[in-house]
Amino acid sequence: MPSAVIEPVARLIEAFSRLPGIGPKTAQRLTYHLLRAPDTEARTLAAALVAVRDEVVFCTICFNISDAPNCPICRDGSRDARRLCVVEEPLDVLAIERTGEWRGRYHVLNGAISPMDGIGPERLRIAELLERAVTAQVDGEPLEEVILATNPSLEGDVTAAYITERLEGRVGIVTRLARGLPVGGDLEYADEITLIRAFQGRRAV
Amino acid sequence: MPSAVIEPVARLIEAFSRLPGIGPKTAQRLTYHLLRAPDTEARTLAAALVAVRDEVVFCTICFNISDAPNCPICRDGSRDARRLCVVEEPLDVLAIERTGEWRGRYHVLNGAISPMDGIGPERLRIAELLERAVTAQVDGEPLEEVILATNPSLEGDVTAAYITERLEGRVGIVTRLARGLPVGGDLEYADEITLIRAFQGRRAV
Repeated sequence: MPSAVIEPVARLIEAFSRLPGIGPKTAQRLTYHLLRAPDTEARTLAAALVAVRDEVVFCTICFNISDAPNCPICRDGSRDARRLCVVEEPLDVLAIERTGEWRGRYHVLNGAISPMDGIGPERLRIAELLERAVTAQVDGEPLEEVILATNPSLEGDVTAAYITERLEGRVGIVTRLARGLPVGGDLEYADEITLIRAFQGRRAV
Repeated sequence: MPSAVIEPVARLIEAFSRLPGIGPKTAQRLTYHLLRAPDTEARTLAAALVAVRDEVVFCTICFNISDAPNCPICRDGSRDARRLCVVEEPLDVLAIERTGEWRGRYHVLNGAISPMDGIGPERLRIAELLERAVTAQVDGEPLEEVILATNPSLEGDVTAAYITERLEGRVGIVTRLARGLPVGGDLEYADEITLIRAFQGRRAV
């Protein structure tokens, strides 16, 4: 950093650069923007950052992010508690909620099994998922369906396989989301594996 | 925003989205990253944002950003006070300092004349630049050189022309940075105007 960069500016550039996808150039641009923008812009962002850490907790039932011990979805009595959709991250919950298709509940694993990164099942909320399945059985009836909506990646598949094995016989059915051609995509640009999955999953019209 | 997004999270996404070049998707990704990252990451960024607004001022001489009434460059007695490089933004000072080529001082206009955006000369630090030129003359000798290093854009050119007219006869020479082919660029991809300027500015080898 040239010596012309004064200390507080260098510190903010450095803090922005630590964010994923923000390189040093972008960090510099954001910093200089905030220096010229109205004072409230930087302060509003600072307050929002502190608030997110002070006020956001993890739901004690589904481990989604929440502003209370139980998240809005777990608190919502109209959501089907006998159907769980298991996802890796809170952002996945958002993506699914945006579709308006799912009226069941969620379980957020907080990642996927990845031996390469030293992430074993014990690092994820899998024990809590099995516990939820068991608790539901104690109530009388097992969970009707558990959708393993982990990512369509090696880690997501390994995680789903691991959970499937442990849930066997404890819940009604375990499902995974369909693989196939993305809507609006172009067949000629689909990768081989997606195309193979699309063939394997073909359905009568 | 789906109702599953809790209030403090929505506020942080919103605050990030206001930054230039950060769309709603990126804002969401940054927010969820900070939710999972160690607590210090969000708090360090928040503190840096507040500090930059609390501690950074504008140099009373050159209007570059500074941590004191006079910036490190204006305080540096080894920098040639009789040569000024006039730029639009503090980021331009950084870019020039990085080259190590310039040993004179700076004057930061804080933008460029842009009638389309309602920015006239009175919104920029042009009066202060003329004042600096006059003050230097009162000291005995006029400024030796004023480089108008505004951007190679319509606004930059208009600004440079406006200042040139007002500086006439008050300083040694007024110059502009060379236009031509960017180093490492490919002639066949150069736009017409750059190529015309490169021809006009050709030099004997």
